[in-house]
Amino acid sequence: MKVTALAGGVGAGKFLRGLARAVPPQDITVVVNTGDDLRVHGLHVSPDLDSVAYWLAGVADRDRGWGRDGETFRTTGELRERFDAAGSWFGLGDLDLATHLFRTSLLASGATLTEATAAVGERLGVRSPLLPMSDDPVTTRIDAVDRDGRAMDLHFQEYWVLRGARDDVKGIRFDGAGSAAPAPGVLDAVARADAVLVCPSNPAVSIGPILAVPGVREAVIARRDRVAGVSPIVGGAPLRGMADRLLPVLGVEVSAAGVARHYADLVGTWVIDEVDAAHADRIRAAGLRVAVTDTIMADDVKAEALARVALSAALGG
Amino acid sequence: MKVTALAGGVGAGKFLRGLARAVPPQDITVVVNTGDDLRVHGLHVSPDLDSVAYWLAGVADRDRGWGRDGETFRTTGELRERFDAAGSWFGLGDLDLATHLFRTSLLASGATLTEATAAVGERLGVRSPLLPMSDDPVTTRIDAVDRDGRAMDLHFQEYWVLRGARDDVKGIRFDGAGSAAPAPGVLDAVARADAVLVCPSNPAVSIGPILAVPGVREAVIARRDRVAGVSPIVGGAPLRGMADRLLPVLGVEVSAAGVARHYADLVGTWVIDEVDAAHADRIRAAGLRVAVTDTIMADDVKAEALARVALSAALGG
Repeated sequence: MKVTALAGGVGAGKFLRGLARAVPPQDITVVVNTGDDLRVHGLHVSPDLDSVAYWLAGVADRDRGWGRDGETFRTTGELRERFDAAGSWFGLGDLDLATHLFRTSLLASGATLTEATAAVGERLGVRSPLLPMSDDPVTTRIDAVDRDGRAMDLHFQEYWVLRGARDDVKGIRFDGAGSAAPAPGVLDAVARADAVLVCPSNPAVSIGPILAVPGVREAVIARRDRVAGVSPIVGGAPLRGMADRLLPVLGVEVSAAGVARHYADLVGTWVIDEVDAAHADRIRAAGLRVAVTDTIMADDVKAEALARVALSAALGG
Repeated sequence: MKVTALAGGVGAGKFLRGLARAVPPQDITVVVNTGDDLRVHGLHVSPDLDSVAYWLAGVADRDRGWGRDGETFRTTGELRERFDAAGSWFGLGDLDLATHLFRTSLLASGATLTEATAAVGERLGVRSPLLPMSDDPVTTRIDAVDRDGRAMDLHFQEYWVLRGARDDVKGIRFDGAGSAAPAPGVLDAVARADAVLVCPSNPAVSIGPILAVPGVREAVIARRDRVAGVSPIVGGAPLRGMADRLLPVLGVEVSAAGVARHYADLVGTWVIDEVDAAHADRIRAAGLRVAVTDTIMADDVKAEALARVALSAALGG
């Protein structure tokens, strides 16, 4: 059985760890958001690709969620304190830096992001194929307004990491998406999978950019009956991140039902948490099937149980 | 009083620390070898510039000689062990990496190596102007033959760090030197200094590349009476490094007198160690004045005493 997952960062990583216990890892193809990618100190940093890789490799920091387990921040600390370097607000760990140096060197020598991602995955021991959504640059930009009413055009990471999501958001753009092509294998992976899973990732800035790459949304819609998604909103709030600040910009209600309606044209079955069971009727009214389960992934065993529910939901479509 | 020093790495760093106790640091311009520069994981690494900067900033590792005090090697260890990355034989420490990331980012944004070097020095708190010998790439290459008689064309760092200087050396080249220009300020610094000092650095691969940049040798020769050099050879051997393997390739005897003769056209006074006092007559016969002192720089106080002898020798010319 082949499974293809659309993934953002930490929530996806946790979910995929569970999925890799339910399905042979090599049969899971993960299509990952690269709209968050940025250059830091000249290095190509792919936060979501790395989060997924670290979780699947078993080297993620479970407490912090992002980055490597046992991480230190010697180089970033020095760049920040002694060099006052531009970009040092983005904290790169010392182990994490190895990934960025390795990837950036490969890219500089002519490798595509797809090839560099495969090499990173292989070196980390990730058995699931990881695909960037595109080899072309796509950048999530946030049109924001600060407290003084000043308009700002921010990279997503500036909005989120540098400024702590404190600005009012007026719009979200995926620069470059219009002329980007899906990375090699992405459309095939969606078309040929027995099940397509939308991970519990931010609909606005994790799944949104993937679907904005021309051809991807259509490919998922074509498989709608085999598509299941896991709600990233539980009890009216995201488990982590700032989706509650961004979904309203898209006119999406911050609720399990709201996101279901947002995905209605491409998801066949929507998996929601037990605390949101009362939303089931509204979701069905939007044309989706519903599965209700415990979606809080406190550990791999719980993530596996959730993955099995999502998988059954997709296969039962 | 203005002093200009020609410098390689560790030996120069120790000497310059002493010199900066004898002369206001801001009056010492240091012209540094960049023939050892290399790209590691895509980063521009300037080993001699950094050694000099770390020593003058007081953050060098005194025991190891090279690199930063209190250094760790988390990123390099990961690149070596998990990623098996090309170039990971060259160990970059985590604090040291901050320098390379900072410099490489500046270069990528259009700064010259001179500008990037000034910025690194400023952030590290180095008060002496540090100048690369050239903003143009000059690379020290070693024509070598391994034990099986196989000829190899090695970057200097491959010869020294990767292969441990175990190969027979047939020749030394400074690729790019012929078309390189001295960095802005280099010729002026030599022409206008009250004293020009040749640090106790490797004549073949530290001072040699500096003198190979068109115009530099002539500028030093023009100041010969005000030039003093400190012998890097004491008791017939280099204090560190592999000069004993390389000097014979240039036809230079591995002795205080041999190096003096090698420098005879550009150095007015040659400072040798007390153990080499018997060489004084041979050095004078080659047309140089001689100063004899303790040249072993066990600490800053001893380095200062040596610097004062060299300075007096240059000024007395």
